Amino acid sequence: MSASPLTTGDVLARVADTLESRRPDRGGDPQSSYVAKLLAKGPDSFLKKIGEEATELVMAAKDNQPERIISETADLWFHCLVALTHYNLRPEDVLAELARREGLSGLEEKARRPAG
Amino acid sequence: MSASPLTTGDVLARVADTLESRRPDRGGDPQSSYVAKLLAKGPDSFLKKIGEEATELVMAAKDNQPERIISETADLWFHCLVALTHYNLRPEDVLAELARREGLSGLEEKARRPAG
Amino acid sequence: MSASPLTTGDVLARVADTLESRRPDRGGDPQSSYVAKLLAKGPDSFLKKIGEEATELVMAAKDNQPERIISETADLWFHCLVALTHYNLRPEDVLAELARREGLSGLEEKARRPAG
Amino acid sequence: MSASPLTTGDVLARVADTLESRRPDRGGDPQSSYVAKLLAKGPDSFLKKIGEEATELVMAAKDNQPERIISETADLWFHCLVALTHYNLRPEDVLAELARREGLSGLEEKARRPAG
Repeated sequence: MSASPLTTGDVLARVADTLESRRPDRGGDPQSSYVAKLLAKGPDSFLKKIGEEATELVMAAKDNQPERIISETADLWFHCLVALTHYNLRPEDVLAELARREGLSGLEEKARRPAG
Repeated sequence: MSASPLTTGDVLARVADTLESRRPDRGGDPQSSYVAKLLAKGPDSFLKKIGEEATELVMAAKDNQPERIISETADLWFHCLVALTHYNLRPEDVLAELARREGLSGLEEKARRPAG
Repeated sequence: MSASPLTTGDVLARVADTLESRRPDRGGDPQSSYVAKLLAKGPDSFLKKIGEEATELVMAAKDNQPERIISETADLWFHCLVALTHYNLRPEDVLAELARREGLSGLEEKARRPAG
Repeated sequence: MSASPLTTGDVLARVADTLESRRPDRGGDPQSSYVAKLLAKGPDSFLKKIGEEATELVMAAKDNQPERIISETADLWFHCLVALTHYNLRPEDVLAELARREGLSGLEEKARRPAG
């Protein structure tokens, strides 16, 4: 592990790992963690954020401001990852679906394997 | 390619590569390609989809249907990637922002430890 | 009815009356009526439109185009009225809630005074 | 005026009147008024709320809870009215557009007349 630089590809899985550790049923503390608080409150709390962040991304895009577009997309994807966590799903599932649709040959099966 | 297993992390970058090739200014054909058509029409066409897909994701989540949640998240992320393409941005920019926020850089070992 | 001028206030109620007549269980025909089709398909069909039209309103507003703002707000409110129809609710219920919040009941004179 | 009870039809216009008085350029105080604060912050502040409230309405509808549906629709329409106020538009403009589309004969001209 020591020699491999962190690739962007690992980021979604790594963030998802962190989010899983914030689940209240895995010891996440709603008092100290924003994510644990969202997960403890239940779906409406983070689904509402998905609608809100999507709108903010649209506004940033209309303003043609690259840094805000990146930041709002990050916000949106982050809250999608929170939702996936709640439903016991993984970003790898979404990426496998994207790979399947795009016909990225040979990706599908690998994408569904647990990282290791 | 043969030796290196393709990780899920590559999917977003690969999809983004494909989307770039659909840009009308790079030969994408609005007649034959859905993405080229969106990019030719301009921002409102794909930003509208972001709002629509966010809503569909919320509805799939409320219905607690895992496959639809994955499918709608894929739709949403896909149209985010189309937007990024239009603005000459890359998913790697978004992932770097997520990594930055989550403090992933240089924290590889800590982050990989199971929460406890 | 003949002597009383129709106020804007009647519009929402009148539209709601029309929408009710489009309910499949009241003879609305999904083949010939857009609204009957939405109502026959069920909630996701018109709720999706609410998310979509909200996004389009936001984009029209960002573009600062008054006619589009009016048109998109009309689209949004219209699909809200379709939703209300499905759930056996009326725009009057929403207006009563707005009036309640704004403290309009019984405050007619005060509210009509020019601010200042 | 004295004898006429407040009809629901007047509500949107009345709320719009109140919102106009909250405009910072008409003396609205961002310190004491939520609406004045939104208007002082500029479009993104209330457009973001439109996206958020639309999502909350969708969730309330998915939960099939009539009171929440009414409450969220009121929230959504209220923030639409704030947006209209910012752009110097009136709910009567939206209602006239709805009347025009629905072919409510004789309403159009009347609807555009200032009340009173």
